[in-house]
Amino acid sequence: MLREPAIEPRSEPRQEPRQEILRTAARLFQQRGYDATSMNDVAAALKLSKGGLYHHFESKDEILFHIMSHAMEITEERVINVVRRIDASSVAGAEERLRMLIRLHIQVVLSPEDREVTVMLHENHPLPPALRRKIIGRKKDYLHFVENLVADVQRKRSSQSLVTPRAAALALVGMINWIYQWYKPDGPLTGEALVVQYTEIFFRGAVG
Amino acid sequence: MLREPAIEPRSEPRQEPRQEILRTAARLFQQRGYDATSMNDVAAALKLSKGGLYHHFESKDEILFHIMSHAMEITEERVINVVRRIDASSVAGAEERLRMLIRLHIQVVLSPEDREVTVMLHENHPLPPALRRKIIGRKKDYLHFVENLVADVQRKRSSQSLVTPRAAALALVGMINWIYQWYKPDGPLTGEALVVQYTEIFFRGAVG
Repeated sequence: MLREPAIEPRSEPRQEPRQEILRTAARLFQQRGYDATSMNDVAAALKLSKGGLYHHFESKDEILFHIMSHAMEITEERVINVVRRIDASSVAGAEERLRMLIRLHIQVVLSPEDREVTVMLHENHPLPPALRRKIIGRKKDYLHFVENLVADVQRKRSSQSLVTPRAAALALVGMINWIYQWYKPDGPLTGEALVVQYTEIFFRGAVG
Repeated sequence: MLREPAIEPRSEPRQEPRQEILRTAARLFQQRGYDATSMNDVAAALKLSKGGLYHHFESKDEILFHIMSHAMEITEERVINVVRRIDASSVAGAEERLRMLIRLHIQVVLSPEDREVTVMLHENHPLPPALRRKIIGRKKDYLHFVENLVADVQRKRSSQSLVTPRAAALALVGMINWIYQWYKPDGPLTGEALVVQYTEIFFRGAVG
């Protein structure tokens, strides 16, 4: 869906041109701000003509929408699809799903190669309502997936926790997504320490 | 600091004109996006001349900086100053400080009248480095305050928790600040339910 084969020779990047456009645009949006970056800036950074860029995307809003969609695809592939492959029929299996989700979601947030795309999920620029609804829908699907994992672990453990799966899922997604605000690769908290400590906080605090 | 007395009659709002400018600008920034809002738009919404607006703020970046500073002042006054008044010499006192911080920080995030200002703390627009550093400094001060509260409770409880005060503080600030992304006043999770459940997650999970 994100690939488009090059049909004839052209000066545009030949491999996965749409993906390359999305990544470059995401980087510019973060460096300069979304609105301060023009379609001309994006085209220039890619050494594309303006026409070449518009051949792929009709507007900057369309680019932002596809960056956000791509970020959700990355999350779905790297987190949900992997977690789903774990057999959750036992208590230990259900717990392992939740542990793996915490680990993989943190890895996506910290991943240097995906960060320029995934961080755009937090861009506050108001998209046109139809596009906005699609992104919100995918974010909600992710939240429901987390909520169901929590509910499953609580049920299998016969947990007496006061914390509802919904509040737990919102807290977890919040503490993980917030990492982009402060994380420095060379800071004192390593990615692995974060995984261990956030897992501890969440399992003790929310699963009961 | 945010007040400026009206010296001569003018068409500008007479009471706390700077605050009114900041609130109106914050609302416009959220509705239309920061970069898509011009100084002309801000002046028009306030029924100010462009000169009248520039009399108070030299640039849009200066307005954004002062909105963010004001948001930090609100947080410091409503959270830190109240929490500091609680005697923390006993275990129960130290715990009460932390409980109160969670409650008050959530209240600031949910407050309808402050929301238009406080949500701007999450605006991704890159401020000029000197202004940016000042805001980051205040955010760090807040984080250290939380970290110290956690360390104090862990110490007084002789906690064996694996969770460091720093990771705990980052997780807490993340889960609370993230609320602005999904909270609806008429949604199923009330503010009070949020306070109770987030307090439960944090105390069980991070304090040990």
